[in-house]
Amino acid sequence: MQTYRLTVDKFLDHAAAWSAEGIVQALPGGGRLRVTYADVRARANRMSGALVAVGLEPGERIGTLAWNTRHHFEIYYATMGLGLVCHTLNPRLTRAQLARMVREAEDVALAVAPDLVPLALELAPLCPGLRHIIVLDEPTPASAPEGVQVWDYEELLAAKGAPVQWGGFDEDTPAGLCYTSGTTGEPKGVLYTHRSNYLHTLRTLQADAFAITARDVVLLAVPMFHANGWGLPFSVPAAGARLVLPGRDLDGESLARLMREEKVTVAVGVPTVWIGVLDWLGHEGGELPALDRLLVGGSTCPEALVRRVEDRLGARVQTSWGMTELSPLGTIAPPADTSDKPGRSGRPPVGLEIKLTDDQGVALAEQRGNVGRLRVKGASVIESYFKSDEDVLDAEGYFDTGDLAMIDDDGNLAICGRSKDLIKSGGEWINPAEIEAIVGGLPTVSAVAVIARSDKKWGERPVLVIQRSAGAKTSHAALLDSLRGQVADWWLPTEIVEVDRMPLAPTGKIDKTRLREQLESGAITAATIET
Amino acid sequence: MQTYRLTVDKFLDHAAAWSAEGIVQALPGGGRLRVTYADVRARANRMSGALVAVGLEPGERIGTLAWNTRHHFEIYYATMGLGLVCHTLNPRLTRAQLARMVREAEDVALAVAPDLVPLALELAPLCPGLRHIIVLDEPTPASAPEGVQVWDYEELLAAKGAPVQWGGFDEDTPAGLCYTSGTTGEPKGVLYTHRSNYLHTLRTLQADAFAITARDVVLLAVPMFHANGWGLPFSVPAAGARLVLPGRDLDGESLARLMREEKVTVAVGVPTVWIGVLDWLGHEGGELPALDRLLVGGSTCPEALVRRVEDRLGARVQTSWGMTELSPLGTIAPPADTSDKPGRSGRPPVGLEIKLTDDQGVALAEQRGNVGRLRVKGASVIESYFKSDEDVLDAEGYFDTGDLAMIDDDGNLAICGRSKDLIKSGGEWINPAEIEAIVGGLPTVSAVAVIARSDKKWGERPVLVIQRSAGAKTSHAALLDSLRGQVADWWLPTEIVEVDRMPLAPTGKIDKTRLREQLESGAITAATIET
Repeated sequence: MQTYRLTVDKFLDHAAAWSAEGIVQALPGGGRLRVTYADVRARANRMSGALVAVGLEPGERIGTLAWNTRHHFEIYYATMGLGLVCHTLNPRLTRAQLARMVREAEDVALAVAPDLVPLALELAPLCPGLRHIIVLDEPTPASAPEGVQVWDYEELLAAKGAPVQWGGFDEDTPAGLCYTSGTTGEPKGVLYTHRSNYLHTLRTLQADAFAITARDVVLLAVPMFHANGWGLPFSVPAAGARLVLPGRDLDGESLARLMREEKVTVAVGVPTVWIGVLDWLGHEGGELPALDRLLVGGSTCPEALVRRVEDRLGARVQTSWGMTELSPLGTIAPPADTSDKPGRSGRPPVGLEIKLTDDQGVALAEQRGNVGRLRVKGASVIESYFKSDEDVLDAEGYFDTGDLAMIDDDGNLAICGRSKDLIKSGGEWINPAEIEAIVGGLPTVSAVAVIARSDKKWGERPVLVIQRSAGAKTSHAALLDSLRGQVADWWLPTEIVEVDRMPLAPTGKIDKTRLREQLESGAITAATIET
Repeated sequence: MQTYRLTVDKFLDHAAAWSAEGIVQALPGGGRLRVTYADVRARANRMSGALVAVGLEPGERIGTLAWNTRHHFEIYYATMGLGLVCHTLNPRLTRAQLARMVREAEDVALAVAPDLVPLALELAPLCPGLRHIIVLDEPTPASAPEGVQVWDYEELLAAKGAPVQWGGFDEDTPAGLCYTSGTTGEPKGVLYTHRSNYLHTLRTLQADAFAITARDVVLLAVPMFHANGWGLPFSVPAAGARLVLPGRDLDGESLARLMREEKVTVAVGVPTVWIGVLDWLGHEGGELPALDRLLVGGSTCPEALVRRVEDRLGARVQTSWGMTELSPLGTIAPPADTSDKPGRSGRPPVGLEIKLTDDQGVALAEQRGNVGRLRVKGASVIESYFKSDEDVLDAEGYFDTGDLAMIDDDGNLAICGRSKDLIKSGGEWINPAEIEAIVGGLPTVSAVAVIARSDKKWGERPVLVIQRSAGAKTSHAALLDSLRGQVADWWLPTEIVEVDRMPLAPTGKIDKTRLREQLESGAITAATIET
């Protein structure tokens, strides 16, 4: 059979040839930008030519500090189609973290949203390899730092743009680079290849997974700097569907208006953004009659949110589990699955192998109904971190996700916590996630985390950290009472900390590393309680 | 990212691990065999061990002369999982054709349905490389020819079966071999690889293509010896759906009963079999309430059939175009497409590139709205025929399908004929397919073919061959009148032949090669007519 390289430029080529659809981008102020895939393809291809013209060479890395816009989408294809690596950076990280990433990646250029230009200018002196800053979305004045050329995207395209040949290189060529959130330890880079992205795309397009058709209007409310925007910048054009990009604004009002006006059928994002949409609709009124389903991931979807979406919007919720190291899709509930399985994250579409093991990495004899360490294998799963010698695969080639999971009799995966969060007390394991689920269900508590504190007698003991709901009152005794009978007595936290505001990592997850540091340094103090 | 080889054994592994579904096989006499994928996987894997035990080695070829049964399905995986090549043979070919294929493929074993054992025993002396005959489905007495061992499938499995490691070889390893129908010229072999089959499977599982979900019950009414049974022995377990195998009986009654009793939701086959089902239901009464859609391919689906299915069954018809050389899917109408486009074969799901060219292979400047030669490129498209030096790709790597096609403004493909069937008269082309479509629409005509006859003056002239409908009367003048005004006057056939029965190739298509031979040899005679 033919040698046909699996490179991602083929997705946009396909959309340009076969789809009359394209991209709709929300503009600041409520306007819309509308472009066909054929136009986007031609522009992105000419931008590749511009990148060549200013001296970039295949294999080099371009960082992006950008929101979900047409220009960011074009940079994806302009870089990847040419064999450059698109290194998406999370603008919510600290300047020091970003500088470390840009230096490690040896980014030679940054493509930057207008409001992030000041950040980019701060990074420039910290990143000696940086030669170009390309300002996206709209003309923005910026004084060029020493040794760095600053370009306006449209001016660069007009001045230097030229058609080039995309693809033609090996399918194992790197295409993208994305750092993990680093909620446990330093962020680490995941280097995606054309092959891993291509196969991830086909895997997600199955009818029991993303199931996108040419008639869909898909809202990408997950940032394109999070694990390829869950692959949707590839899968939506590959299916010939319309792609709606919200720009920077992910607040409830902006998204609700966008979904209503653009007749979005499938909307993709983390639970938090949908709570915002529901809250706004609850306040302002109105329906989203075109909406068929919400595709939710990033963290476990609260059962209450599922019910609200079904009751208020008449739409279905597709829960999923994934991680940056998996490109990112792991498991997903089918679009048609209306069964009542709170906390479940669906099943793996073909192309990902899963096993649950004990702490020593030995597969559990019975894979169903037992909690184990979740290990995975597949064409879109990491083999090793970027510029790291650490061996992250076991002898059978499985990657240890660090998650604890259970698989029910129907094959649905439920994430039960992080193995690194586990607390070893008196030689036995305590799972913070179970305690957090119970305490987090109390109306008086708006956020909760259970972390380990070293203990001379027990090795480690659990510390309960809570953020009280606004105006709520609760006692330590009431918190512990909620746990009694639900978990073993020796799991009951020995100390409780109240914080005004839970520290969050840039992905929105609670930053347990910071909490532990604050506790060790005395920045927050715990009250010892009687158990 | 991980090195994860795309081998087809992973589909059955996935089904065994994640699906509680399996195979239902219709047994002669109306009974049913039911097995889970986990059982089928274990049995097929042990059969691999049995094949090793009797001396077969990876890379060797096993022919199958078999219907759609559980044993045939197991042989697919038992051979491919081990790196053997599963060479599906069409039992409706002549003994001489089959012997030539078995010799060219150097098949060392034949897996044979009980009723085809006499055929296999006839082939044995013509095929000196043959060492084993494995009788499928049920115990059948057979005397072993010289140098050949005859095995009963279940006895072989019980006596020699043992678990083996599947996969682990390069993804470009050959997996299957299938010969083209040979309606124009000698049959030629297409050697599928694991990679081409794996990618074809993912490509077909998209929501606008086969769209199979874990809740589907899929009837495979296309023989497994036709181009991998359109890939369904891979895609159905990969999706975790139930696979219904009809055995040998593809008559209307058998299929209608099977579909009704097994609550089939998706049924796959050529138009002829669905006409049989509709005819039987029309006569006997009854509905197929579970049926959601018919997936039709193999030849252009008559518009009247689409209407009958929609009206009589309340089901949708998904039309498609494919060929053995494409694994086989080319284009397909989406499941949800209810638009009225007679004669259309849908669009290419991502993974296949299409261009229309002129006779010299130059791409048409305007790809839409013009008839051109259909050329394709993709990971599941042939590069060269088995054991052939003929270069079948153009300079850009496209395979010339030999079909003439047009693409409408919505991107739907319509096949307009075979380029090899074209008749060159006075330096201009006549397209037999257009004439056939008009004459074939007459109620007095049940089958029609237009073939070329060499002509001293014009080079070639068209000869109209018809088979009259039972009891119908028609005159040559009436036939020509139907064409006048519809085609150019110089396209009007100069001769007409009436045959009692149109010669058919083993795939059910009209055998034009044979018709031309019969005409040249005088076996059939044409009446010259005034035009």
